[in-house]
Amino acid sequence: MPELTEQAPSGRGKMNNAFDPATAAGLDEQTRTLVDRRQRLLGPAYRLFYHQPVEFVRGRGVLLYDRDGRDYLDAYNNVVSVGHAHPRVTEAIAAQLGTLCTHTRYLQPGILDYAEDLLATHSGRIGQAGHAMFTCTGSEANDLALRMARHYTGRHGVIVTAEAYHGNSDLTAGISPSLGEGSPLDPWLRRVPAPDSYRRPGPGLGPWLAEQVAAQIHDLERRGDGVAAFIADSLFSSDGIYAQPTDVLGPVAEVIRRAGGLFVADEVQSGFARSGERMWGYQRHGLDPDLVTMGKPMGNGYPVAGVLVVPEVVAGFGRDTRYFNTFGGNTVAMAAAQVTLDVIRDEDLLAGSGRVGEFLRRELAGLAARYPVIGDVRGAGLYVGIELVRDRGSQEPDRAAATAVVNGLRERRVLISATGEHGNVLKIRPPLVFTEADAGRLLTELDAVLASRPD
Amino acid sequence: MPELTEQAPSGRGKMNNAFDPATAAGLDEQTRTLVDRRQRLLGPAYRLFYHQPVEFVRGRGVLLYDRDGRDYLDAYNNVVSVGHAHPRVTEAIAAQLGTLCTHTRYLQPGILDYAEDLLATHSGRIGQAGHAMFTCTGSEANDLALRMARHYTGRHGVIVTAEAYHGNSDLTAGISPSLGEGSPLDPWLRRVPAPDSYRRPGPGLGPWLAEQVAAQIHDLERRGDGVAAFIADSLFSSDGIYAQPTDVLGPVAEVIRRAGGLFVADEVQSGFARSGERMWGYQRHGLDPDLVTMGKPMGNGYPVAGVLVVPEVVAGFGRDTRYFNTFGGNTVAMAAAQVTLDVIRDEDLLAGSGRVGEFLRRELAGLAARYPVIGDVRGAGLYVGIELVRDRGSQEPDRAAATAVVNGLRERRVLISATGEHGNVLKIRPPLVFTEADAGRLLTELDAVLASRPD
Repeated sequence: MPELTEQAPSGRGKMNNAFDPATAAGLDEQTRTLVDRRQRLLGPAYRLFYHQPVEFVRGRGVLLYDRDGRDYLDAYNNVVSVGHAHPRVTEAIAAQLGTLCTHTRYLQPGILDYAEDLLATHSGRIGQAGHAMFTCTGSEANDLALRMARHYTGRHGVIVTAEAYHGNSDLTAGISPSLGEGSPLDPWLRRVPAPDSYRRPGPGLGPWLAEQVAAQIHDLERRGDGVAAFIADSLFSSDGIYAQPTDVLGPVAEVIRRAGGLFVADEVQSGFARSGERMWGYQRHGLDPDLVTMGKPMGNGYPVAGVLVVPEVVAGFGRDTRYFNTFGGNTVAMAAAQVTLDVIRDEDLLAGSGRVGEFLRRELAGLAARYPVIGDVRGAGLYVGIELVRDRGSQEPDRAAATAVVNGLRERRVLISATGEHGNVLKIRPPLVFTEADAGRLLTELDAVLASRPD
Repeated sequence: MPELTEQAPSGRGKMNNAFDPATAAGLDEQTRTLVDRRQRLLGPAYRLFYHQPVEFVRGRGVLLYDRDGRDYLDAYNNVVSVGHAHPRVTEAIAAQLGTLCTHTRYLQPGILDYAEDLLATHSGRIGQAGHAMFTCTGSEANDLALRMARHYTGRHGVIVTAEAYHGNSDLTAGISPSLGEGSPLDPWLRRVPAPDSYRRPGPGLGPWLAEQVAAQIHDLERRGDGVAAFIADSLFSSDGIYAQPTDVLGPVAEVIRRAGGLFVADEVQSGFARSGERMWGYQRHGLDPDLVTMGKPMGNGYPVAGVLVVPEVVAGFGRDTRYFNTFGGNTVAMAAAQVTLDVIRDEDLLAGSGRVGEFLRRELAGLAARYPVIGDVRGAGLYVGIELVRDRGSQEPDRAAATAVVNGLRERRVLISATGEHGNVLKIRPPLVFTEADAGRLLTELDAVLASRPD
């Protein structure tokens, strides 16, 4: 591997909202002790959030509590999708742990019941006749999806958006440009711009993106290979959150299919009702993907993830090799996933996500009218992006403002983060049980932070 | 990718002890229904154990129970290392789930306490100053270890034993020849024979293996690259279980280090007291590895795994990129890992594994005196291999006998499996709470199965 260059001063590749250990001297003693222990025990590859890292001792619903019993509003963590420490989830996992924890090489009705239930929430060919395969993490799900795509197509090319993130395994880190300039990309990876609806508004975004994809396919074919898969998170979370318009990915899927490639819908961020419109992000774009991957919120914190695949894509893979994941699909993982899906439906969190998300964006539009630093408010359901700019005319990203707001909110005990290539898009992504009252608290504190800015 | 050839008739690449769906017609109706649903819902890449697949509804200690309440002796599952449904483990996980489940970007003392405790069980440079990184699966741990090894050395070559298994991710499947001829190997993978103590007894095995490794390093260097890492499970589980002698890996580590490569000790199978001699398999060989990976038994079924690494190997990786695993090292994973380690110590399972394993091998040697099909009995602690042969003179592997014994024991409600290139090595690997009485039940049933064989 060649010597890697230092990170560009623009901040490309620098993690957004990361604590800088060089500033540890300014922390209170208890925090500094924990930070020092972390450096010593966990080493240099771990990152903390915030200028002032935070420690929690318990959580419930959308609230997290520190040692002093102060509550923090969690407007960031989508893993605990049905809320922190949901009693039904705890109970179901504990009950299964106390009964049986074993793997997929014995017969288990639980995995079949869950697979059937999960597949029935899908559309198109996967909804009709798809197969479900279970892993522990979204990274493993994307890794497996790409292995199958390459096996099926006999080709290696993968196309993603410019700042995509799809995982931490060797293969998925290699297709995750958002890990930064120091993280090597797969030689068969090609990138296209994200559908930036702020800088490229109006119709025609889909056909334009499809043209970019076609050019990359052409390049892959000129190398004697071609495209195995296009993979995208339909909310484009790490690119900067582009939830609208929803006619963008259809033309891309068309181009990919014509070239013999597969469309992988990465639902780790957008799935399980997050968008407030449909259960799955690809459904908002009217797609019929070949593979669907999912993870984070699937077991409300229990490590469970999966891949859904149309039968023909896994047929040869299943004949030539096999897939076994020791913990993936084990009885406890399936109990966790089942209860989480049940709660999403029983508490009607899809509707809640849609309703509260809309309320939040409407109120944010009001704030935008008062604070010119807000260039754009966008999102779907409870996945909201607020793009901060130096100037609405030039649309120049304002990373410093985003960093200040994220840390200002943390001081006021509201948790969010920032995303996008320039780290200037505030990322709001709370548990789905977030209410209008919770949104109100967020808005009040955000208003206060914005009002306190020097300009 | 080239067209993959059909699996060789020798059975190379065929999974040992797999159910063949073509025989489903012979199953009872309830089992057939479950098997059919599995094919439809989970697709063709999943495999079941046994000619007659088995379903369990609950477990406790070393026993698993079917729908009719009949108990099966579990002499196979090392994941539930401290026993099925251990109440302390269930309680600790449930308590943490009901309190807080969150990730490593907030400060948590639990992960630090566990990392400190875990590192203190190690020797050499890792025991003194190693860093701990947490993943969800052993595959993720090996994948991360190899990413770091390649980053550190700037080279790609990986050397493994002939039938190694190190994971199911793209990278780790690519270094896992035991997945069979249909699963593509990494272009930078090189293989050496396993230290087959049965066919190559006596001293000199270590230097001989080191010579094989040196030849592969030479080949990698001739390609303008070189060796990044040698990775091995020191029990050589998928090669056929070669627990003795323990002076084999020292000479290999020496050769690897001289060539600038790293030694990765894959402790997924051999770690956490399994060998009955030392907590970690590499300690039996007197090694000082650069990286240590672990998984399966770490959380007694909860998906938790990890990598330990000497500081210099992760320094550049931590500077150039970062590692974040959504579920890896979360508060619940750490609670599961901590209680499992506590139980291993509190119930003195290291001593138990050593004592019961020795008893079992002694008694098996008695059986071997009566059944010539038993060519060799070997192992360490509660990891035992029984090699079945057609003839003790020719040492020709007897796959059919092993398949018959594994399935015969299953009919008598004792669970084991088979391993090795020829699938002729019975693999006995029970939870560590296995007692002499449990061993007695296994021995009685094995005797009965062997006695009932036609010859």
